[in-house]
Amino acid sequence: MMRTLFGVTFCVWAVMALTSLSAQQSTGAPAYTAEGKLVRPLDYRSWVFVTSGLGMTYGPAQPAGGQPPMFDNVFVTREAYAEFLRSGTWPDKTMFILEIRRAETNVSINNGGHTQGDVALIEAAVKDTTRFASTGGWGYFDFGGRDRLAESAAPLPSTARCYACHSSHTAVDNTFVQFYPELFAVAKAKGTVKATYDPNRKP
Amino acid sequence: MMRTLFGVTFCVWAVMALTSLSAQQSTGAPAYTAEGKLVRPLDYRSWVFVTSGLGMTYGPAQPAGGQPPMFDNVFVTREAYAEFLRSGTWPDKTMFILEIRRAETNVSINNGGHTQGDVALIEAAVKDTTRFASTGGWGYFDFGGRDRLAESAAPLPSTARCYACHSSHTAVDNTFVQFYPELFAVAKAKGTVKATYDPNRKP
Repeated sequence: MMRTLFGVTFCVWAVMALTSLSAQQSTGAPAYTAEGKLVRPLDYRSWVFVTSGLGMTYGPAQPAGGQPPMFDNVFVTREAYAEFLRSGTWPDKTMFILEIRRAETNVSINNGGHTQGDVALIEAAVKDTTRFASTGGWGYFDFGGRDRLAESAAPLPSTARCYACHSSHTAVDNTFVQFYPELFAVAKAKGTVKATYDPNRKP
Repeated sequence: MMRTLFGVTFCVWAVMALTSLSAQQSTGAPAYTAEGKLVRPLDYRSWVFVTSGLGMTYGPAQPAGGQPPMFDNVFVTREAYAEFLRSGTWPDKTMFILEIRRAETNVSINNGGHTQGDVALIEAAVKDTTRFASTGGWGYFDFGGRDRLAESAAPLPSTARCYACHSSHTAVDNTFVQFYPELFAVAKAKGTVKATYDPNRKP
């Protein structure tokens, strides 16, 4: 009887601990509204960071004429990152967040270069070979800017520039892994860089 | 008997699942060699990213005269990040990695601005109020550069510039939270910005 009680107590403890661990982990799966809009994830800053750039000349990070450069931070869901480390490929339901931030100068003790300021824009890319079958298995989403961030967003139309650019100029699948130094090394080692990828090709 | 067997089976399953989840998670605690050297963490890219800067004019990211600017990426252990979101403070055993990367231009379709290249340097900061009591509760470590990365490093001597700078110019505890936009907002909301922090003070 004591052994059974101990067993039950231990089991309850184990399940509680398990539940607690699970609660700390984002499932990492994209969520949609009933209308098929992607729900903007609130926890993407705890996902895995893959790179940052400053003042890149294409896509949403491109500064408008005469405007200061912007930082672009890229985050990916943790489960997808783990799978990429294993296989060099993105599994279905992979989700990326592209976070564009203003670049600040002269903050606190910094006198040169740039540090990161407020969010300017948040965009997303989701791999779902069923849901986005008509656009190469990926959907792209624009949640807008800091002062008008949408809680959810419909996929951008297939005519949006992102679809063609991500299809033509990316090193692995529809993703710019050529800009993610650690993951590009993984893709090279796993042989998953696209045969069509040309590092010297410009649009 | 069947109930007991089911209970035992379920319990074994629960513990196996628990162990599996734990194995996926870094404990986040700093590890030391027998000589007290900090072991260089290999999984810091899966920790939480707090900010990046380019060409900052102090610390290890400061470019040498005539050299191109460097990116500095800052990562913190996941448990410490969760606690900071909760309380605006860093718990004991918090560990930061500062990863300095070369900045590249003109990679692939990018024609302006900078993208991230190879690692140049890796440094660490660890909060341990017992182990580093004589240096304000924090220890700083230099693992060297990409081609000569050390597997472990002794704390830098208390005369190293980092100690005085992190003590005098930081917004929260010994950390430059003023450069981590999301966490600075948390610290302001929780009231944990140091009374001595002056955003206009230069060294």
